[in-house]
Amino acid sequence: MLEDEVAGKARSVKEASAALYTCTSARKNALLRAVDRRIRRASEAILDANSRDLESARLAGLSSVLLDRLTLNEKRIGQMAAGVREVIALPDPVGRVSRTIRRPNKLRVQRMTVPLGAVGIIYEARPNVTIDASALCLKAGNAVLLRGGSEAINTNRTLVEILRAALTEEGLPAGCVEFIDTTDREAVLLMIRQEKSLDVIIPRGGRQLIAFIQEHASVPVIVHGEGNCHVFVDRSADLDMAEAIVVNAKVQRPSVCNAAEKLLVHERIARKFLPRVAGKLREAGVEIRGDETALALVPGAVAATDADWGMEYLDLIIAVRVVAGLDEAIAHINRYGSHHSDAIVTGSKGHGEAFLREVDSAAVYVNASTRFTDGFEFGLGAEIGISTQKLHARGPMGLEELTCSKFIVHGNGQVRT
Amino acid sequence: MLEDEVAGKARSVKEASAALYTCTSARKNALLRAVDRRIRRASEAILDANSRDLESARLAGLSSVLLDRLTLNEKRIGQMAAGVREVIALPDPVGRVSRTIRRPNKLRVQRMTVPLGAVGIIYEARPNVTIDASALCLKAGNAVLLRGGSEAINTNRTLVEILRAALTEEGLPAGCVEFIDTTDREAVLLMIRQEKSLDVIIPRGGRQLIAFIQEHASVPVIVHGEGNCHVFVDRSADLDMAEAIVVNAKVQRPSVCNAAEKLLVHERIARKFLPRVAGKLREAGVEIRGDETALALVPGAVAATDADWGMEYLDLIIAVRVVAGLDEAIAHINRYGSHHSDAIVTGSKGHGEAFLREVDSAAVYVNASTRFTDGFEFGLGAEIGISTQKLHARGPMGLEELTCSKFIVHGNGQVRT
Repeated sequence: MLEDEVAGKARSVKEASAALYTCTSARKNALLRAVDRRIRRASEAILDANSRDLESARLAGLSSVLLDRLTLNEKRIGQMAAGVREVIALPDPVGRVSRTIRRPNKLRVQRMTVPLGAVGIIYEARPNVTIDASALCLKAGNAVLLRGGSEAINTNRTLVEILRAALTEEGLPAGCVEFIDTTDREAVLLMIRQEKSLDVIIPRGGRQLIAFIQEHASVPVIVHGEGNCHVFVDRSADLDMAEAIVVNAKVQRPSVCNAAEKLLVHERIARKFLPRVAGKLREAGVEIRGDETALALVPGAVAATDADWGMEYLDLIIAVRVVAGLDEAIAHINRYGSHHSDAIVTGSKGHGEAFLREVDSAAVYVNASTRFTDGFEFGLGAEIGISTQKLHARGPMGLEELTCSKFIVHGNGQVRT
Repeated sequence: MLEDEVAGKARSVKEASAALYTCTSARKNALLRAVDRRIRRASEAILDANSRDLESARLAGLSSVLLDRLTLNEKRIGQMAAGVREVIALPDPVGRVSRTIRRPNKLRVQRMTVPLGAVGIIYEARPNVTIDASALCLKAGNAVLLRGGSEAINTNRTLVEILRAALTEEGLPAGCVEFIDTTDREAVLLMIRQEKSLDVIIPRGGRQLIAFIQEHASVPVIVHGEGNCHVFVDRSADLDMAEAIVVNAKVQRPSVCNAAEKLLVHERIARKFLPRVAGKLREAGVEIRGDETALALVPGAVAATDADWGMEYLDLIIAVRVVAGLDEAIAHINRYGSHHSDAIVTGSKGHGEAFLREVDSAAVYVNASTRFTDGFEFGLGAEIGISTQKLHARGPMGLEELTCSKFIVHGNGQVRT
């Protein structure tokens, strides 16, 4: 029953994707303009559906953080619509020729970007993802199968109706956006095994969801994993700059994946730097954990256990380790980090370049906060998420990362001998 | 026991990959020169090991095709060594900056190619893959875990010894190349679940092996699937050119994935073209299957069943269908094809461009044989295989496709507000 529904919707998305595959930019933008217009017109219906979700969530005793994520209001609806207009303004990623090779036999071999096809998005509480992710997928010529958080099911259903009405209005198959309309968790397992219909699954959610999907998916997955991010303050660092970067990376928004969780400090400056940065962090309410050397320099810090070094807190906590130098810092990050975003603060050009080269993470920084790992901040225009895997896309994923490529070959009768 | 061995070797590869991550081109090339030299010097030992594999294979009753694939001789050993020298001559794919974005806040965001890390290769009979795949992986800065066909285990073991001796000679960890030295098939299942250690699995083999790996892998996989390739002869085609392309695509090497398996012919030229091309194909020993219209035009052809349209024969068989025009041809290819390599023969520029745009395959051709889908023929220098999936790499995979990227960000104290 549920199996038939999920398989049927995946097939519907696959079939509809053919209509988007060769869609012109003008037509895709007209579609997105219709989505923008319809969102703004339907704010009452959206708020009504959202209030039903909020009521159930309150009855179920959801935390205030989760309730906030779930909540839409006029302003947030306006932001969703504005997000769609931003996607309209972005250049079409499809049809770009990235490589042209002319062969001795006169074959012209080129690589061209094309849509991925049928994309499955699995996400949790925030209902705005329904619109944000669909707008990006559609602009890149992909049809999309959505599975949102069960708390937001009424809101998501209403938003999907808007998307499908816009598709119909523009003469495109409504199947370009399908929605798994059930709170049954079994649906996730069924969805990630539709390898005949779906080209990729992009999961956005917590550690457990991601691990479950990696374990069970037969559809290729682009993993959006954890961020156990580091700032290493080198011996030659400008300490004012280092303090500003460490505090920003930890405190500005501690609940997100590009926030710093670990501070590594060169032993030669630890005595001077650690007490002052610890003071600033504490002022901001940060709990400090430390290795032995750090404990001696930061009175009242808690001893870090071995588990701390691998942990993503997503909270006002930082663990501090004093290291002998650049090599130890790099080795620590590559060993314990999650390969998301890591920064060095240094006055040495050579150390900066070595750090960039040797740290194996999606984003590596010299003298800047890890908080910039983001599609907008990197100038990609928008993002569907931040990939922590190596295949296909790594780091913030923009429109370009929602495409793949094919080889197109022009000949005049060539055969192989 | 076996589980510990596979996990241990995967970990060894992962650890060793750090040494290759920042290896200079000069050093990687010195390593490959040592491999080349050692292969040429060890031909006697290689032939000896190979003769033991051949003896077991003969006793086990392997077909002459498989025995041929397994067989090494002086000439083939020379070709393996020459292949390594070709990889030495290719440019290093690591460290290329493909994108530079300067942000209003003066951050400089760049995307740089870096090694994938630890690559698992699973392959079948041909022992030359041991050297070819390892050379490409090492040049791209990747460590490699090899699992070859059980028929070739003695040959593969000897070749791996050569690779590891060369690594040691160059002061690199021998763990940069590890070999699953068992014929136990359980090892494949264990290997594809080492997601903590391996960054990607590249399987090369038959349909069953690929399906098994897709089903059970937790490590990301780059699938090398089937080639159910088409040639569509349009109404405006030059019929001499069409005949040459169809015969070449079908006959020149029927056992490979880029050989044509299907011929689609425009109904307006079917009466003229089909009998002559059928004659040529038959001269080359090709069995012709056809739809009703084709059967009427090619006496003695066998009726094609519905199963034929989705089938990869890898043999001297072709199925022919007469279509009403371009749109029907494209729809047929997208529906029944394997999205590998498909060609149109046409005199119409517009039809050619529409075919290139609308056929959703890894390689699409106008007026050339599908047999060119190959890393060497496309000018990529070499190939580790031909990907039929959409994520990461699609079509022939060269050195560049054995890398991934990271964002490197230069700042001067930027924090996020």
